[in-house]
Amino acid sequence: MTTYDPDRPLGVALIGYEFMGRAHSQAWRTVTPAFDGPAIARRVLVGRDARKVQDAARRLDWEEYATDWHEVITRDDVDIVDICTPGFLHAEIAIAALDAGKHVLCEKPLANDTAQAEQMVEAARRAEDRGQIAALGFNYRRVPALALARGLVEDGRLGTVYQARADYLQDWLADPDSPMSWRLRAETAGTGALGDIGSHAIDQIQFLTGQRTTAVRGRLATIVPERPGDDGREAVTVDDAAWATLELDGGALASVEASRMATGAKNELSIALYGSKGALRFDLESPNELWFLDATVPVSEQGFSRILVTEPEHPYLQAWWPQGHVIGWEHTFSHQIHDLLSAISGAGPAFRPDFAEGLALQRVLDAVVASDAADGVTVHLDR
Amino acid sequence: MTTYDPDRPLGVALIGYEFMGRAHSQAWRTVTPAFDGPAIARRVLVGRDARKVQDAARRLDWEEYATDWHEVITRDDVDIVDICTPGFLHAEIAIAALDAGKHVLCEKPLANDTAQAEQMVEAARRAEDRGQIAALGFNYRRVPALALARGLVEDGRLGTVYQARADYLQDWLADPDSPMSWRLRAETAGTGALGDIGSHAIDQIQFLTGQRTTAVRGRLATIVPERPGDDGREAVTVDDAAWATLELDGGALASVEASRMATGAKNELSIALYGSKGALRFDLESPNELWFLDATVPVSEQGFSRILVTEPEHPYLQAWWPQGHVIGWEHTFSHQIHDLLSAISGAGPAFRPDFAEGLALQRVLDAVVASDAADGVTVHLDR
Amino acid sequence: MTTYDPDRPLGVALIGYEFMGRAHSQAWRTVTPAFDGPAIARRVLVGRDARKVQDAARRLDWEEYATDWHEVITRDDVDIVDICTPGFLHAEIAIAALDAGKHVLCEKPLANDTAQAEQMVEAARRAEDRGQIAALGFNYRRVPALALARGLVEDGRLGTVYQARADYLQDWLADPDSPMSWRLRAETAGTGALGDIGSHAIDQIQFLTGQRTTAVRGRLATIVPERPGDDGREAVTVDDAAWATLELDGGALASVEASRMATGAKNELSIALYGSKGALRFDLESPNELWFLDATVPVSEQGFSRILVTEPEHPYLQAWWPQGHVIGWEHTFSHQIHDLLSAISGAGPAFRPDFAEGLALQRVLDAVVASDAADGVTVHLDR
Amino acid sequence: MTTYDPDRPLGVALIGYEFMGRAHSQAWRTVTPAFDGPAIARRVLVGRDARKVQDAARRLDWEEYATDWHEVITRDDVDIVDICTPGFLHAEIAIAALDAGKHVLCEKPLANDTAQAEQMVEAARRAEDRGQIAALGFNYRRVPALALARGLVEDGRLGTVYQARADYLQDWLADPDSPMSWRLRAETAGTGALGDIGSHAIDQIQFLTGQRTTAVRGRLATIVPERPGDDGREAVTVDDAAWATLELDGGALASVEASRMATGAKNELSIALYGSKGALRFDLESPNELWFLDATVPVSEQGFSRILVTEPEHPYLQAWWPQGHVIGWEHTFSHQIHDLLSAISGAGPAFRPDFAEGLALQRVLDAVVASDAADGVTVHLDR
Repeated sequence: MTTYDPDRPLGVALIGYEFMGRAHSQAWRTVTPAFDGPAIARRVLVGRDARKVQDAARRLDWEEYATDWHEVITRDDVDIVDICTPGFLHAEIAIAALDAGKHVLCEKPLANDTAQAEQMVEAARRAEDRGQIAALGFNYRRVPALALARGLVEDGRLGTVYQARADYLQDWLADPDSPMSWRLRAETAGTGALGDIGSHAIDQIQFLTGQRTTAVRGRLATIVPERPGDDGREAVTVDDAAWATLELDGGALASVEASRMATGAKNELSIALYGSKGALRFDLESPNELWFLDATVPVSEQGFSRILVTEPEHPYLQAWWPQGHVIGWEHTFSHQIHDLLSAISGAGPAFRPDFAEGLALQRVLDAVVASDAADGVTVHLDR
Repeated sequence: MTTYDPDRPLGVALIGYEFMGRAHSQAWRTVTPAFDGPAIARRVLVGRDARKVQDAARRLDWEEYATDWHEVITRDDVDIVDICTPGFLHAEIAIAALDAGKHVLCEKPLANDTAQAEQMVEAARRAEDRGQIAALGFNYRRVPALALARGLVEDGRLGTVYQARADYLQDWLADPDSPMSWRLRAETAGTGALGDIGSHAIDQIQFLTGQRTTAVRGRLATIVPERPGDDGREAVTVDDAAWATLELDGGALASVEASRMATGAKNELSIALYGSKGALRFDLESPNELWFLDATVPVSEQGFSRILVTEPEHPYLQAWWPQGHVIGWEHTFSHQIHDLLSAISGAGPAFRPDFAEGLALQRVLDAVVASDAADGVTVHLDR
Repeated sequence: MTTYDPDRPLGVALIGYEFMGRAHSQAWRTVTPAFDGPAIARRVLVGRDARKVQDAARRLDWEEYATDWHEVITRDDVDIVDICTPGFLHAEIAIAALDAGKHVLCEKPLANDTAQAEQMVEAARRAEDRGQIAALGFNYRRVPALALARGLVEDGRLGTVYQARADYLQDWLADPDSPMSWRLRAETAGTGALGDIGSHAIDQIQFLTGQRTTAVRGRLATIVPERPGDDGREAVTVDDAAWATLELDGGALASVEASRMATGAKNELSIALYGSKGALRFDLESPNELWFLDATVPVSEQGFSRILVTEPEHPYLQAWWPQGHVIGWEHTFSHQIHDLLSAISGAGPAFRPDFAEGLALQRVLDAVVASDAADGVTVHLDR
Repeated sequence: MTTYDPDRPLGVALIGYEFMGRAHSQAWRTVTPAFDGPAIARRVLVGRDARKVQDAARRLDWEEYATDWHEVITRDDVDIVDICTPGFLHAEIAIAALDAGKHVLCEKPLANDTAQAEQMVEAARRAEDRGQIAALGFNYRRVPALALARGLVEDGRLGTVYQARADYLQDWLADPDSPMSWRLRAETAGTGALGDIGSHAIDQIQFLTGQRTTAVRGRLATIVPERPGDDGREAVTVDDAAWATLELDGGALASVEASRMATGAKNELSIALYGSKGALRFDLESPNELWFLDATVPVSEQGFSRILVTEPEHPYLQAWWPQGHVIGWEHTFSHQIHDLLSAISGAGPAFRPDFAEGLALQRVLDAVVASDAADGVTVHLDR
C-alpha cells in the first residue's frame, strides 16, 4: 500500500472528466499554491472515450490520460484515486482502488444502492486498517461559511438546537419541455432531486447539528411526469421534487425540501438552524455569507448578522485573499482536497465524511423513499 | 334584518378588546378617511369585565361599552358585529348575530372544532339568503403585496403553478422557560402553531394558487414538552411546531411549516410560488415588498424583482401615501374592513373568505392533525 | 397664553389639508389610543378653498373647518396650531400663533428664507419664555429605528464617529416629460431636491451624530433643465439633484446626496455611520430595520445585524403591536405628536428640533447653495 | 518584436509576487483550462529578494525565478511582461518591456505621477504601431456582472444616464492604532484611498456610462492624522477618505466616495446608475449579482431584479460552472488575461483600458487632488 513520503509528490489519478471531473481538476490545480501541504502530481486523467479524455487531459492539465481505470489504480506513481464517475460505477472502482492500496476520494453519492455501499464500507474498513483514507466528497461541508456555522454549533453558541431546515432548490427542469436524460431514469440515477441535491440538504442538517437521523417521513413527487425523449414523450421515473421531516438523535427536528422545478432558484441550498441561544441562516447562492443571531445579547440589539466569511480568522480563508475578496464555489473542492491531503500527511484530522457516514446517509435517503412508498408513514432507522 | 341605507351610518359592535380587538379598533377608526365608502359609527365595544372594557372603549374610541353581547347584537343601531373573542366563543356569537339579522365579521379561526364550524356555515347560508354578509377574517389576504401576487397568478404570469411553500415562523416560545398559557393547552386552543399561524400559511397557499387541498401529510411536534405553570412544570398539550405537505386540486404541491420556536424569526410568513412562467416570493417581515420573477424574459436578465408595493396602481394603495411611503401591518385590517363595507354597500365583490371557506380550511387543519396521529400517512379530503 | 390643564382636552387647529395635512390628520387621530397622554380635540381644519376644506374636514374627521387662519389662532378652544401649509406661509402663521399664545408645530422647512426663519426664532424665544412650545417637524427623527440608532450613538456603541453618509433618493422626476409645478420654480420652492429631501438627509446626519456642521462644499444640478408647462417648455429653476460634503464640529465628515431623478428609488433615505467601535445602516424603504455592526465582538463573528425594530424595548414600539408586526411611515407623525404632547404636558423632555435648530439647518442648506454658486469652494458656518 | 505563433506557447514573465502577483499567478494558472485560447508558458517570476522569489515561484507554479527584470524582458521565450510591482516602478519596467518588443500587462495605477504616465503612453503608442499590446489592469471591468451592466447601458436599456454613483469602502484603517506603512506615505503611495480604490470607482463610472470626465470637484480627508510608526507616532500624509463629484461628457453627473475607515465595509464597491429607461445597482461584496430595474415595464411590476450572473449567456460565464455556481474575486484576473490573450491572438477586440485611458484616469485623480487643494473649486479637464 501507499505510504506517505514527504520527499515524493503524491500521485493522483482522476477518473471522470465531466462536470465533477472538471471541478476536481480545478481543485487539484489550485490547492497547492493556496495551501501548504504535500506536493502532488496530477498523473493521469481516466475516461472511456480516448479522444475525449485526451483532449480533456490536455485542457485540464493532467500529465497523461488513460482509458482503463483498472490499469491506473495499480500504478506505482499513483497514490490517490479520485472517482468522479456516475454513481453506479463508484463501488467497483473504489473497492478495487482501496484493495490496490490507494487512498480514495469518491464523489457523492457513495453508491446507487445500499448493497454496494455496504461493500464499499467493508473495503474502506480493511483499507483504513492499513492506513489508507477512504474519503467521501460532500463538498459543501467545506464552504467556509458552513464550516464556521458548524464551529458555532460545536461551541454551544446556538444552545440546544430545536429545529433545522435545509432546502435545495434548482430550476433546470422548470421548463416542462426540458428533455429526458439519464438523470431522469430510475435505473441510471436511482432517485432524482432527492439523491442529487436532497442528499446535500440532509448531510448539512446532520453535519451542522452533529446529530444523526433516527426517523423519517418523506414525500416524493414527479410534477412533470413525461418529457421529450429520443422517441417521443418518455416517462420520468425519478422525483423532481422531494420533502422530508427528520427526527434527530439529539432531539432536534428537521425538514428538508429538494426541487428541480423551483423557477428562479439556480443553486439555492438555504439552511436555517434554530436553537435556545441563537440561530443561523445560509444560502448557497451567497456562499460567502453566514447569518448568525446571538439570542444572548439584549433583545433590542438582536438580529441576524451578515458575517462576510472572508477574514483570515475564518475556516480555509487564510489560503486566499484579503478580507472582503470573495471566493467561488470551486474552492469547496480545493478545501476538500486540502483536508484530504492533511489527513494523508497526518497534519490534519481524519477525513470526514468517511464511507460509513456515506452509507448512513444512504440509509436516510432510502428511508425517505420507503416512507413515501408507504404513503408517508414514519420509517425508523436502526442505529 | 339590516338593509344598507347610504344616508345612515353603519353601526358597528366589536366584541373583544385584547390584541385583535385593538387591531380591529384601529382599522375601524382609520378605514374611513382613507377609503371612500359607507359612513360607519363605532357604536359599542363589548367585553366581560366592565371596568376593563370601559377603559378600552375610551382608549379605543368607541361610543359606548357593554358587557353582554346578547343585548348588543339585537340593537337597532348595530348593523355589523365584529367578533374578536377567543375561538371557542365564535360559533355562539356569530350564529346569534347572523340570526339577529346582522352582518358578521369573525376573526379566524372560524371555530375550534368542525362541528361548530358546520353550524356556523349553516347560519351563514341562511343569512346570506337574506342579503347579510358572513365574513371571515384572514387579514393577510389584504396585504397589498399578496393581493398583487394573487393578481399575477390569476393573470397567468406564473403559468402553471408547480410548487408552493409557506412558512410561518415566530420565536416567542424559543425560551424554554417561557410560561404556560391558554394558548398552550389543547382544551382552550385546539392546536398550537398549526391553527394559530399554520392556518395563515395554508390559507395563503390556497388563496394565491386559487387551488384547494385534496390530500395532506402532516407532522406535529411539541419540542418543549413542559413549561412553568402556576403550580410547577405543566405539560404543553399543543404543538409548538408543525409541518405538512399538501396536494392541491390544480396539480400543485405545497409544503408548509409553522413554528413558535424559530429563534430570531419575529413574524416571518415567508411564501414562495414556482410556476412554468414565473415565480413569486414574499416575507411578512418586509410586507411592502413582493419579489416576482418573470421567466419569459431573456435568461440573461431574469431575476427576482423587488417590487415596492406602494404605488397607486397597487391594490389598496390609492388610499394611502405617495410611492415609497410604506404602510404597516395594521392596515391589513383596514383593507379587510374596506372590502367588507364594499360588499355590504354593493360597491365591491362578495367578501372572501366566507364561512364555508373557513370550514374547508378547518378540515385541512384537521387532516394535518389526523395524518400526524396516523404516523404521517396521507389523509384525503372529501370534495 | 395656553396653560396645560389635564382635565381639559388640548384643542388642535391644523392649517393645510394636502399631503402633509392628510398625514398629520392621521397622526392626530391615531396618537391617542396608541399612547397615553393628554386628551386632544381635533377642533378645526383650515384651508383657503371653502368647499375643499369642508370636504377634507369631513373626511379627515375634524370637528369644524375654517378658511381664515387669523381667526382660528385666537380661538380659546385652540391650544395647538399645526402648520402644514407651503413653506412660504410658515413664518407669518407661526409668528402670529406664537404671539397669540398657542403651541406651534410647524412642518419643515422652517421657512423659505433665512430672514423669515430668524424672525420665527425670535418669536419662538419669546413664546418659550412664556412656556409655549415651538416645534419643528422633522418626522424622520421619530422613525423608531433611527431613534434607536441615535441611542446607540449616544451610548458610545459606535465609539468616535469618523464618517457618515445620507442619501435621499426619489424618482418622481426621472421621466423627462414629468410636468412643471410650483415645486420646480425657485420663487415658490426656494430650492428643489436639496431643501425638500436633502434637508432630511442633513438633519439626520446632525441628529444621529449629535454634531453640528461647521463647513460645507456643495453642488447642485438641474439635470433636466426644461419641462412641459402650461404654455410649452418652461425652465426648471431649482435643482433636481444635489450633493454636499459636511465638516462636523465633533470631527466627523459626512456626505449627502439628494435626487429626484434616481430611477427606481421611491423614497430611499439611506444612511450610514462609521465609527471606531461600530457602524450603523438604515434605509427608509425598509423603515422597521436597523443594521448595526458591533466592531468590538470577535472579528470572525462581526457583521451588520438586521435588527427588526418592533420590540416593546424599542423606541415608541410599546404603543403598537407585538414583535414582528411592522408599523408604517405614517406613525413617524404619530410619534412626533406624542413627543409634542409629552413636552406640553411636562411628561417628556423638551421637543427637538426647535425653531433655532431649524434655522441652523437652514443655514447649512444656504451654505450648500452658496458653495455651489462659488464653484464649489468651502463655505464656513459661523457658530 | 513578438509575433503571435499559434504553434508556440506565449511565454509570460510576472514581476512582483505580493498580493497582486499572487492574484495574477492564480489567473495565469486557471485561465487556460477555463477558456480556449493560446497556450501559455509561465516562464519566470521576478522579484528582488532571491530567497523569497524562489519560494514564491515554487508555490505559485512558475518555471523559473529571477531577480533582475532587465534580463527577463529581453528573453526570447518571454512574450508577455506582467507588471505587479508597486506603482512607482511601473513606468521604467513597462517602457523597457515595450521597447524590447513585449506585450505588457501593467497593474493599475498606470504610474504614480502624470509625467511618467505620459512617457508610458508614448512608449505604448510606438509599441502598438508594431502590433504589441499595452494593457492596463482594471480588473473590475471583468466582473461578469459589471460587464453585463456595461452591455445593458450600451444596448440603451437605461436610456439617457442621468446620474451615477460609485462608493468604494473598506475598513482596514478603522482601527486608529492600525500601523503606518508605505501605503500611508505620500512619497511612496501618491494618494491614499483616492488612488488605490477611488480609482476603481471612477473607472467604473466612466466604463459603465461610456462617458469621460470633463470637470471635477473633490475633497480629501485624513481622518486619523497620526498612526504608530517604528519610532512613535508618525504623520499620515495621504487621504484615508475621499469624495468627488464628476461632470461627464455625455451629460451625466456622478459622485464618488472612497474610504478605508468605513467600519464593517470589507470590500464594498457599490455602484448605481440611474437613467431615463432603467437603473442598475451592484456591490462587489456580492459580485455575482447585478440589480437591474427596467423602467419600461408597467409600474406595478417594476423593481430591481436580482440577476444571478452565472448563466452561460452571461459574459465570461461559459468558461465556468453551471448556473447558480458562483465564481470568486480571483477570476476578474482570469478574465483580464483571457481578454489580453484574445487581443494578442486576434480572436478578440483590442484590450481596454489601454495606457492612454489610464493616463486620462490619472488626470481625473489629479483633478480631484487639485480641487481639494483649491478648497473645493471645480477643476476642468482638457479634452
